[in-house]
Amino acid sequence: MSEDVIRTDMIIIGAGPCGLFAVFEAGLLGMKCHLVDNLDKIGGQCAELYPDKPIYDIPAVPRCTGQELVDRLMEQIRPFEPAFHLKEQASDLRRLEDGRWRLETDAGTVLEAPVVVIAAGAGSFVPRRLPLPEAERFEGTSLFYAVRKMDQFRGRNILIAGGGDSALDWVLNLQPIAAGMTLVHRRDEFRAAPDSVEKMRRLVAEGRMRLVIGQISALDGEGDRIRSVTIKGTDGTSTLVPCDTVLAFYGLKMELGPIAGWGLNLDRNLIAVDTAAFETNQPGIFAIGDICTYPGKLKLILSGFHEAALMCQKAFKYCFPEQKLIFRYTTSSTDLQKKLGVA
Amino acid sequence: MSEDVIRTDMIIIGAGPCGLFAVFEAGLLGMKCHLVDNLDKIGGQCAELYPDKPIYDIPAVPRCTGQELVDRLMEQIRPFEPAFHLKEQASDLRRLEDGRWRLETDAGTVLEAPVVVIAAGAGSFVPRRLPLPEAERFEGTSLFYAVRKMDQFRGRNILIAGGGDSALDWVLNLQPIAAGMTLVHRRDEFRAAPDSVEKMRRLVAEGRMRLVIGQISALDGEGDRIRSVTIKGTDGTSTLVPCDTVLAFYGLKMELGPIAGWGLNLDRNLIAVDTAAFETNQPGIFAIGDICTYPGKLKLILSGFHEAALMCQKAFKYCFPEQKLIFRYTTSSTDLQKKLGVA
Repeated sequence: MSEDVIRTDMIIIGAGPCGLFAVFEAGLLGMKCHLVDNLDKIGGQCAELYPDKPIYDIPAVPRCTGQELVDRLMEQIRPFEPAFHLKEQASDLRRLEDGRWRLETDAGTVLEAPVVVIAAGAGSFVPRRLPLPEAERFEGTSLFYAVRKMDQFRGRNILIAGGGDSALDWVLNLQPIAAGMTLVHRRDEFRAAPDSVEKMRRLVAEGRMRLVIGQISALDGEGDRIRSVTIKGTDGTSTLVPCDTVLAFYGLKMELGPIAGWGLNLDRNLIAVDTAAFETNQPGIFAIGDICTYPGKLKLILSGFHEAALMCQKAFKYCFPEQKLIFRYTTSSTDLQKKLGVA
Repeated sequence: MSEDVIRTDMIIIGAGPCGLFAVFEAGLLGMKCHLVDNLDKIGGQCAELYPDKPIYDIPAVPRCTGQELVDRLMEQIRPFEPAFHLKEQASDLRRLEDGRWRLETDAGTVLEAPVVVIAAGAGSFVPRRLPLPEAERFEGTSLFYAVRKMDQFRGRNILIAGGGDSALDWVLNLQPIAAGMTLVHRRDEFRAAPDSVEKMRRLVAEGRMRLVIGQISALDGEGDRIRSVTIKGTDGTSTLVPCDTVLAFYGLKMELGPIAGWGLNLDRNLIAVDTAAFETNQPGIFAIGDICTYPGKLKLILSGFHEAALMCQKAFKYCFPEQKLIFRYTTSSTDLQKKLGVA
């Protein structure tokens, strides 16, 4: 369905401050941008992790909170009308025959552009996985780290692992529709809301579910179907729990995610770039902000801004190979001021 | 007089936005700064050339004037109490035996520090000189491009060259105390205030000074003393004007100035630096902002900010070789927040 493909100049992965400022620098040079972010809001870590905390080291901004920084950047890039694709993870990236790039998200959005800019900060928040070699074999069929559709688990004999809110919430939500329910946690204390814990304990007392203290030490099954889970108790004893579905909620961690599989030169989970254009080893793919590395790199927001500006000079050549780029200042160029809507 | 030497951590040449932000990044790491600028105010080109013009490309500052940018930076660096030496040109730089640097200004200020940061923008505004090979021989003894002390010219037979306000003002100010006065200009029209021109013409009419239309084609003299000046008229004729002092006011131009003689690797009048620490070929001498060059360099204020931050990481090692540098964020570090006076 080629009519569903979005064609643009620059695909930016990550809608944090560096991705946002890249829209500005791209806009000054006439490039249009689409941004993809797997968070549900604009602003990356600034908006997610410290929206109310003050930042003091943005040049010429003696003090602003994470959210204020994002708001200021959004105001600055408004003239360039960027398009956002939130709650979507960039999953598949491949080169087209004409040299452009095709990015597909986990929501099925397809974007094509000559330039891809990875401004993904520390990467994506992804679930911590079961540290067992056999786990991968079951993942997606009988082992899950998130619930997309509750109905998928109706009538299943479920084992849920974890001691936080996610684990307890899904125990309580799925127990009524499941054929069986077991909760496994390494100790008999929970980091979840007390009310949820109490409800769970009542279900256990009523014999409507099971609570096993210990850690999953093995998954057994046939093909990609789990048949039982071995749980090792703190006293060294093992318990075999028959079940057909395992849901593990061990919290989230930051990782590169699908980006790690795109053939980019990596240096300790960061993307290696040159310092002239912050381009990766793949022509047309750039990396800016905390996710890129080069000699002297500092994970400062202000460095990401600089990287965005230099990156756009080379990105321009991929977008408009026949045009000559003339370097202009916003203070003196009527052309740039028109683009900004102030002249 | 060693008691007059100022010892500090970082000497910054240039008090424009990049030099100012370097104070901030240095301050976060505990380094004290002295700034030298040959302008009479803080802010460099921003304050001198476009104080009232809006700038649109400072990240997270959708719009501010040159002066507002300087004011914001001054507020941001206030906790670090930088010292300014304005109206002083950095003239002589030499390495001390212990590896530190000794900078002397044209006003006689002597500063010593392990680190020198050149943030001099497009360089210094310097007078355009007489384009004659023999001119250098007389400079400072009988040929001058500025008046420092009027009394120096009492009783001298003076020839002033130029057609702008400086030339006319000094004609009128020095004529009463000079033994003789000749004004030379390439045409019989002046860019000076009409009142000054009228006063000059009156002095000529009264026989108290001479006006010669033409251009200086030769200086003659003995040793470093001028005896006469040859002036070529527009009609091709030459006039010999006896005099012992020449003052030329041909306007100002930007040039590297004394920096050009400090043994730094230059690339088309810019200082070549590495991109990891923005250090020159001389250990401990850094260059940031418009005056430095490296592959991909853009003359953007925001790039100078990034360069200042990375530079300070290496500068720290020169200042505190025995200390370990721990990278911290202003958002989360109580130590940095104490330095900023907010914790």
